[in-house]
Amino acid sequence: MSSTKVKALCFDVFGTVTDWRSSVVREGEALSARHGIEVPWGEFVNKWRIDGYIATLIKIASGEMECIPTEQMHRSKLEELLAEYGLGGLGEEEVNDFNLAWNRIEAWPDAVEGLSMMKENFLIMPFSNGDYRCMLDIAKHNGLPWDGIISADFFKKVKPDLSIYADAADMLCMEPAEIMMVACHTQDLDAAYKNGFRTAYVNRPLEYGAGIPQEDKPNSYDYEAGDFVALAQMLRSDQAAGKV
Amino acid sequence: MSSTKVKALCFDVFGTVTDWRSSVVREGEALSARHGIEVPWGEFVNKWRIDGYIATLIKIASGEMECIPTEQMHRSKLEELLAEYGLGGLGEEEVNDFNLAWNRIEAWPDAVEGLSMMKENFLIMPFSNGDYRCMLDIAKHNGLPWDGIISADFFKKVKPDLSIYADAADMLCMEPAEIMMVACHTQDLDAAYKNGFRTAYVNRPLEYGAGIPQEDKPNSYDYEAGDFVALAQMLRSDQAAGKV
Repeated sequence: MSSTKVKALCFDVFGTVTDWRSSVVREGEALSARHGIEVPWGEFVNKWRIDGYIATLIKIASGEMECIPTEQMHRSKLEELLAEYGLGGLGEEEVNDFNLAWNRIEAWPDAVEGLSMMKENFLIMPFSNGDYRCMLDIAKHNGLPWDGIISADFFKKVKPDLSIYADAADMLCMEPAEIMMVACHTQDLDAAYKNGFRTAYVNRPLEYGAGIPQEDKPNSYDYEAGDFVALAQMLRSDQAAGKV
Repeated sequence: MSSTKVKALCFDVFGTVTDWRSSVVREGEALSARHGIEVPWGEFVNKWRIDGYIATLIKIASGEMECIPTEQMHRSKLEELLAEYGLGGLGEEEVNDFNLAWNRIEAWPDAVEGLSMMKENFLIMPFSNGDYRCMLDIAKHNGLPWDGIISADFFKKVKPDLSIYADAADMLCMEPAEIMMVACHTQDLDAAYKNGFRTAYVNRPLEYGAGIPQEDKPNSYDYEAGDFVALAQMLRSDQAAGKV
């Protein structure tokens, strides 16, 4: 590992810091119960995520469309899915409120404790494809103790665009090796690594629900941990030993 | 006052949240004492601020130069001033460390308490011409409990450029009336007000040192307070009464 000291830890948020799927499923269950309709929410929410949000990110990454607010990415797919699953007749207020379930997703149980430990010795911040407002709302909802926020909309790009990591380093006025990207996603970590960031892989096998096969691990990473408290302990001990 | 509820409070930082002058003077005194040289630090630091940082912002605002990191704005003027005040022979490490005194400036004594109170009911964040890294460092040094950071370098503009307030509102996905600008500077508040922000004027008569005549108050503002705790109490009581 490089001898440069790490100053900042940047975190992927959807999946790495938060359990978006269970959170949105829970809000969906409450919604359909109010209307007496059965909906396979796990399926609904994974489609919302993959065919809505992630498909939109891919279009932005390819230049096919401009960057738009995260709330709009969620909203356009939501209307389609509600119709598909028999909830087409909801009022504007209810649809809008459910759409913002993504701004109220819960952090994994270890997140606040682990982040608070890491905050003692590093600048900690999200580095997410979710936009600034979405990051603010999620942080407020969970009490995430961020020092700042980096969201992809600052740069009008999306991760894992290789140039966005250099943009983030420039904004931080840091060398890439002074920054560690923490994520559960291989693409993100591989791209960060290629740009000279340190990387930490946190395994979140339940991101898309139980029984969904996991993607391959990143090609290279500096740390691997099962949760944020474990990662914080590794970093604390390596920092005390002058290793990070 | 508009009936729209305020969601976010945006703070000017140099002067409004922090007592930059006393902080940098103190570091200057320690520096010159080490070298056995007498320096009128109050004068030095005001020049550094006005003829260095602020003069650079004016050039950026006029399009005469590109946006550069805050650290560089400070650094170029510093070398000139050190030579002028008989400290021209300092080593690179000492100059660089002193230059970063601006990233270690102290908050006014009421800042953390007042911000913590305001954070209970609003999203709170700096909205500064200082860059993201400078804001991160100042927040970390003082334990400022920001929910996020907005710095002018995101937009490659400087306050009080009228368009930067709309950019900030767009980034927050909020109406201007949902945002309150808190500052001790008339230009900033007048520009925010013209863009539909709410405004709070916090008087910091000692920003440039005792006996320096103060600029005129803003033309219009929604709140006026002597410090952040007083402002937090007004906002709390008006929010409880449904007024803000």
